[in-house]
Amino acid sequence: MTTNTTPLLLLSASEQELRMSKLRKAMERAGADGLLIHSYVNIYYITGRVFTGYVYIPLSGSPLYFVKRPVSLAHADATAIRKPEQIELPDRPSTLALELDTISYSDAQRLSAVFPYAKIVNGSPYLAEARAVKTPLEVELIAASGVKQERVYRRIPNLYHEGITDIELQIEIERLSRLEGCLGVFRTAGDTMELFMANVLAGENADTPTPYDFAMGGGGLDTSIPVGADGTVIRAGEAVMVDANGNYTGYMTDMTRTFAPRPLKPLAQRAHDCSIAICRKAEEMGKPGVEASTIYHMAEEMAREADLYNYFMGHRQKAGFVGHGLGIEINELPVIAPRSKYILQEGNVIALEPKFVIPEVGAVGIENTYVVTADGLKCLTNAPEQIVIFE
Amino acid sequence: MTTNTTPLLLLSASEQELRMSKLRKAMERAGADGLLIHSYVNIYYITGRVFTGYVYIPLSGSPLYFVKRPVSLAHADATAIRKPEQIELPDRPSTLALELDTISYSDAQRLSAVFPYAKIVNGSPYLAEARAVKTPLEVELIAASGVKQERVYRRIPNLYHEGITDIELQIEIERLSRLEGCLGVFRTAGDTMELFMANVLAGENADTPTPYDFAMGGGGLDTSIPVGADGTVIRAGEAVMVDANGNYTGYMTDMTRTFAPRPLKPLAQRAHDCSIAICRKAEEMGKPGVEASTIYHMAEEMAREADLYNYFMGHRQKAGFVGHGLGIEINELPVIAPRSKYILQEGNVIALEPKFVIPEVGAVGIENTYVVTADGLKCLTNAPEQIVIFE
Repeated sequence: MTTNTTPLLLLSASEQELRMSKLRKAMERAGADGLLIHSYVNIYYITGRVFTGYVYIPLSGSPLYFVKRPVSLAHADATAIRKPEQIELPDRPSTLALELDTISYSDAQRLSAVFPYAKIVNGSPYLAEARAVKTPLEVELIAASGVKQERVYRRIPNLYHEGITDIELQIEIERLSRLEGCLGVFRTAGDTMELFMANVLAGENADTPTPYDFAMGGGGLDTSIPVGADGTVIRAGEAVMVDANGNYTGYMTDMTRTFAPRPLKPLAQRAHDCSIAICRKAEEMGKPGVEASTIYHMAEEMAREADLYNYFMGHRQKAGFVGHGLGIEINELPVIAPRSKYILQEGNVIALEPKFVIPEVGAVGIENTYVVTADGLKCLTNAPEQIVIFE
Repeated sequence: MTTNTTPLLLLSASEQELRMSKLRKAMERAGADGLLIHSYVNIYYITGRVFTGYVYIPLSGSPLYFVKRPVSLAHADATAIRKPEQIELPDRPSTLALELDTISYSDAQRLSAVFPYAKIVNGSPYLAEARAVKTPLEVELIAASGVKQERVYRRIPNLYHEGITDIELQIEIERLSRLEGCLGVFRTAGDTMELFMANVLAGENADTPTPYDFAMGGGGLDTSIPVGADGTVIRAGEAVMVDANGNYTGYMTDMTRTFAPRPLKPLAQRAHDCSIAICRKAEEMGKPGVEASTIYHMAEEMAREADLYNYFMGHRQKAGFVGHGLGIEINELPVIAPRSKYILQEGNVIALEPKFVIPEVGAVGIENTYVVTADGLKCLTNAPEQIVIFE
């Protein structure tokens, strides 16, 4: 067994305390005396690093760390375990919250049996709500990803040449992103997403329905992963939508811009302008205290007023939202959807993606990542928003 | 609602029947009258495509399809549903197997409540055992991935230049793989893996312990994803291990080769030769009826005899296995580990990765993907196995 003195906690004590205070409010709402975290995402949230094991957070006092791997972390700060049965909670919580939306049924059964004295409750929804309000440090990390992603987007026109396929362009964008520091792994909540680094949707392929909870579609290259670029050559008259996940810091931005080999027909240009106008309006409206659903309704209404509703958020299959929270995962709270009950708070980070699919042209529109401030939405993904003509 | 005539089933009827007969044996072992599948991986296995929804397999008769997304699939063959409560099983199974190792606790609670007449049992371990024996078509798809991956490995030396970092080399390998048709998404079972397309481990970074269940380590670029390349320049005297996942067909190969700017010191060369010798021995031994554990013990014994055990499967943190099954996911059954009870069968596909971490040099050794045949292991990842010297 290796011993060394690498500190387990990579957050400052005050940053961890700030996050724990959010989690403790979540625990109180869940009626729990203790919270046992197992997912990489939440372990990263509360320690600043990923390990395989568990973190126990009591209602008061210091967290306890139980580490399976890497063994190099199991020293003074943490207890080395090989299996969950070795976890001991000295305060024996009477109600224990677990991440029941994330843990498998089998693992939940096994883990619950370790604490026969505790009533088990679901901490997942409360954890998600706590994480939806970012700390200033988290906003900084997201903003830093945005700066990197902006640099990538500005160089996308250099990657185009006549005759290039959607997937070839996507591969060059992925390479550019990686060279800029993109970490290459993208975390999602739930089991209805599988993410590429970037999605390039050229022409009507954007309107091919997919199994996934994405705003836009795409047939993909293979029936095993039916989404995104399908290998067709990019043609004049078509739009090229580039929707990329920017994970440069452990925290993600989500950004979309539209490109085209030649100017698009007026209907498509008008829809793109409507997307930008929706973002401008949302930036103004998106203040603390505003219901997330009103942003959705505004977007839908602006699409209707412009006689573009038929193309709004898809044509053959429509997405039921116009935006989503993000951070460590690409799909966090709040969802900007018609039936969302969420009320925006300062520190929410959301991606807004009012998009349109125009027959014979493809997908147009933009997506920006924003932080909610007292003055409205502040954009973290600043690159030119107009359709960029290749060459 | 779109109606069209895209057939849902993309497998031939006989291929589906072959797979269903395996699943039905699994159901019998689980004591179940019916099996309800929800994971993308198993939906792909039984239909040849991915959708969000469920497949119900009764003990006899045709499967039933329940589709949430894409809506374009919900036609004559399939029932469109928006939520699991809309699933109706006409045969009302008295014992229903669910994928309890995969489904979240919350989703399992909700899904179980839909079938109050049924006793719920765990089908996951039996499904995994059924999928561990590949059909001839599955072996073909894995072999096709192997051919593509071999082409990529042969061109890796062209990507090297003096002063290149491990991550820069990895990015160029990822690009080459994608241009060769690599699908860019890698599925894993369980929640202790997060995969890059390729891992490039240069020098002693290979020995940095990670949280993940991988054979080798690496510190990574960021504490949010602490594995793999860490950005250091590749130096003379060090080994460069390239361990890549080859998902070109929906089915994966797993392959490792070792490269170096200059010939390595004798200890490292000897360890690499030992890795190759272990593979040769395993190829001969790996016949139907052989216990998976005996392959592990043989590998460990050969390492001991060569006085290399100290470096075998890691130095600071050792992996507890020397190989693993793979197919749709990178970590399927069987595991080639000391306590495995698995007995090899014709049609198992396994990756064998006897590796060594040599102080001051890094990781050496190879990994091949094999199918178990009556004559022993047949290699599906054929590229030169000796250490390739760059330039």
